[in-house]
Amino acid sequence: MKNKVRNIVKEFKPYVPGKSKEEICRKYGINLENIIKLGSNENPWGPSPKIKEKIISEVENLHQYPEPINPTLMNRLSEFLDIPENNIIVGGDGADEIIDTIMRTFIEPGDEVIIPIPTFTQYRISTKIHGGKVVYGRYIKENNYDLDVNDILNKINDKTKVIFLCTPNNPTGNIIKKEDIKNIVESTDALVVIDHAYIEYSKKEYDLTRWALDYDNVLVLRTFSKIFGLAGQRIGYGVCNEEIINYMMRVKPIFSLTRLSQVCAITALEDKDFFEYCRANGIKSREILYNGLEKFKLLKVYPSEANYLLVEIKNGLTSTQFTEELLKRGVIVRDCKSFEGLDGEFIRVSIGKFEECNRFLDILKDICD
Amino acid sequence: MKNKVRNIVKEFKPYVPGKSKEEICRKYGINLENIIKLGSNENPWGPSPKIKEKIISEVENLHQYPEPINPTLMNRLSEFLDIPENNIIVGGDGADEIIDTIMRTFIEPGDEVIIPIPTFTQYRISTKIHGGKVVYGRYIKENNYDLDVNDILNKINDKTKVIFLCTPNNPTGNIIKKEDIKNIVESTDALVVIDHAYIEYSKKEYDLTRWALDYDNVLVLRTFSKIFGLAGQRIGYGVCNEEIINYMMRVKPIFSLTRLSQVCAITALEDKDFFEYCRANGIKSREILYNGLEKFKLLKVYPSEANYLLVEIKNGLTSTQFTEELLKRGVIVRDCKSFEGLDGEFIRVSIGKFEECNRFLDILKDICD
Repeated sequence: MKNKVRNIVKEFKPYVPGKSKEEICRKYGINLENIIKLGSNENPWGPSPKIKEKIISEVENLHQYPEPINPTLMNRLSEFLDIPENNIIVGGDGADEIIDTIMRTFIEPGDEVIIPIPTFTQYRISTKIHGGKVVYGRYIKENNYDLDVNDILNKINDKTKVIFLCTPNNPTGNIIKKEDIKNIVESTDALVVIDHAYIEYSKKEYDLTRWALDYDNVLVLRTFSKIFGLAGQRIGYGVCNEEIINYMMRVKPIFSLTRLSQVCAITALEDKDFFEYCRANGIKSREILYNGLEKFKLLKVYPSEANYLLVEIKNGLTSTQFTEELLKRGVIVRDCKSFEGLDGEFIRVSIGKFEECNRFLDILKDICD
Repeated sequence: MKNKVRNIVKEFKPYVPGKSKEEICRKYGINLENIIKLGSNENPWGPSPKIKEKIISEVENLHQYPEPINPTLMNRLSEFLDIPENNIIVGGDGADEIIDTIMRTFIEPGDEVIIPIPTFTQYRISTKIHGGKVVYGRYIKENNYDLDVNDILNKINDKTKVIFLCTPNNPTGNIIKKEDIKNIVESTDALVVIDHAYIEYSKKEYDLTRWALDYDNVLVLRTFSKIFGLAGQRIGYGVCNEEIINYMMRVKPIFSLTRLSQVCAITALEDKDFFEYCRANGIKSREILYNGLEKFKLLKVYPSEANYLLVEIKNGLTSTQFTEELLKRGVIVRDCKSFEGLDGEFIRVSIGKFEECNRFLDILKDICD
C-alpha cells in the first residue's frame, strides 16, 4: 500500500503549528488560566461577547447542512468591505482554504509559485501538495525585511501562476511598499495574492483590498482569525474579480463553513464597537510590547504593523532554548525555527491583554538578565 | 488572467447540493417551521440536546486556534469504535475532507480512481480536482443496484490508486455484499475506500469498520453528519492502518476542525442514550416511509439500509417536475437528476420525524393520484 503514496507526501515536512494552551497545560502541569499565550497572532480580547446568545438558537439547526452561501453573511461582509458580494469568496478553513482553492484553480504540476521568504508557511505547503514548484524570493534582513522586488521580477516567467505577497508580512511584521506591489502586479499576468490577514492593525490608508477590483490579477486574502477573534472557527475570505471568484467557487469545498461559524461571523461583523475596541487595544498592546522589548540589550525587536513582533535573540540561547525557558514559566511565544529564510535566532511575540504583556516583560527579565 | 485557469476547472460541473430550508423559505415564501426537509439524508431529531450547554463555555476560547488533534475527542471516538486512536483521522469538512485528503495522498495526474455509479457525487469531483482519471463501474438496476463486481475487477490495473465502495450506497440505499468487497480488496493493492456514512442505520453485524485493521489497503469512511445529527458542523473521520493515517496527516488541512465542532463531537459521543434513540427512530421512520411509498402504484421504492429511500417515478412527470410539485407544498426531497448512472426518473426521500413522514405521504397523494 505504502508504494502507492505520492513521493511528495513521503518527503513532506508537516506544518509546525504554534502551541496551544491545552498542550502546555498537559505537558507542564500549568493551570490553563495562568498560561499567557502570545504564540499564534490571536486577538486576546476574544470574539464579540454577543456570540454567546446567538449561537444557542442555531443549535436546533445543526443537523442540517450549512448553506454553501449564506446571504446574510455575504451582505454584512460586503458592507464591511464596501465591495460587491460577487467579488467575495468565503472559506470554512480560514485563509488556508482560500489558498488551497487558489491552488486547485490554477496549479498544474510543474507550474511555479513565487514565495518571498521568510513568510507564512502555508503558501509553500499548499503549493507542494498541489504539485506546484516553489520559487523562493526574499525579504532583506539588513533592510528591516523590505521586499527584494527585482529578485521577484527576475523570477517571473511563463510558468509563474501565483505570487504570494504577505503584507503586513508574517513573521516579520513590516508592510510591502505600495509601489513595489504595483510594480509586480503590472509586470505579470500571474495571480498576485496580497495577504492582508493583519491589515486591521495597519494604518487605514494602507489597505489594498480595492486593488482586487482595479486589477484583474490581484486577489486579496482576509480573515476572521485575527482582529475578529475567531481563529477557532476558521473563517477566511478572498476578494477578487468576479470571473476568478466564479472559477474558484467550482472547486472550493462546498459545505466547509459550519453553521456555527456562519453565526459567529455575522455577529462579529455586526458588533462594530467591539471591532474598534479590539483594534485600539491591539495597537496599544503592540506598543507596550515594542517599548518593553526595546529595553533589552540582547534582544532586537523589529517594527511591526501587525498584531505581533519579530524578536531576534542575541543572548546566546537558540530560539528553541529561549522558547522552552518561557514555556516553563507559562508563556507561549512562537519559536521561528520552522520559518524558512530567517537567518539567526528568532521568536515571534503576539499581542496580549495589557496585564499579560506586562507579566511577560517581567518574566523576560529572568531569562535575559 | 482567465487563461491561467486550469482546463479541468473551466470544464467543471459544480456539485448540486440538496436544497436548504432557508432557500425554500426565500424562494416560495413558506414559513421555515412549515417546511418538511427530506432531501439531505439528515437526522431529523437533531444533535444531542446536551450540546447547548457545552458550547457556551467554549465561546471564550474561540479566539484561539483549534487543537489540530483533540485528545478528548480521539479518546471518545476510539472508545465508540473500539479502534485505537492511531488508526483514526478526523476531518473538519465532514467525510469530504477525508476524501480530499485521500486524493492529496495518493493521486498523481493520470492515476485512476474506480467509482461504481450511481453513487455519492463527491468521489468524482474530488478525483477530477486532483487530476485523477475517473473510471466508472456500475451498480445494476435490474438487480436492485447490486454491485457489478466483475466489471470492477476487470477495470483494476497498475494505474488504479483508489476504489470507492459506498455501502449502504447513496442514493440507492442497498449494501454491497461482504464477499464482493472482500473479493475486490484481495484483488488489488489500491486503496479500497468503504464509505460507511450510513452504517448506523444498517444491521449491526454488517459493520466493516474493523476491516481497516485487517487489511492494509482498506480505509473506512465515517461521519457525524448522519446519525449524530451534526451535518451543520462538518465532522467526518476515516479509519485505516497507522502508516497511511500518518501520511494523510501530513497533507490534511491542519486546523479545519473548529473549536465548536470539537465540542459538538465530544458531546454527541458521550450522549449514548440519544444515539440509540436516534437509531431506533430513524429505522422506524424508514419503515413508515417504505410502507407508505409502496402503496403508490406509480412509484417504485427500493429497499434501503440507510436513512433514505430511492424512489422511481412512473407517473409521467420528470424528477424535476415531481420535486417542484413537492417544493410548492413545502416538502424538500432530492431530485436525483444530478447523479450519474441513474437510468430513469428518481427522487431520494430521507427519513423525517414521524409526523413529517405522514404529512409527506398525504401530500404525495395530491401529486400521484
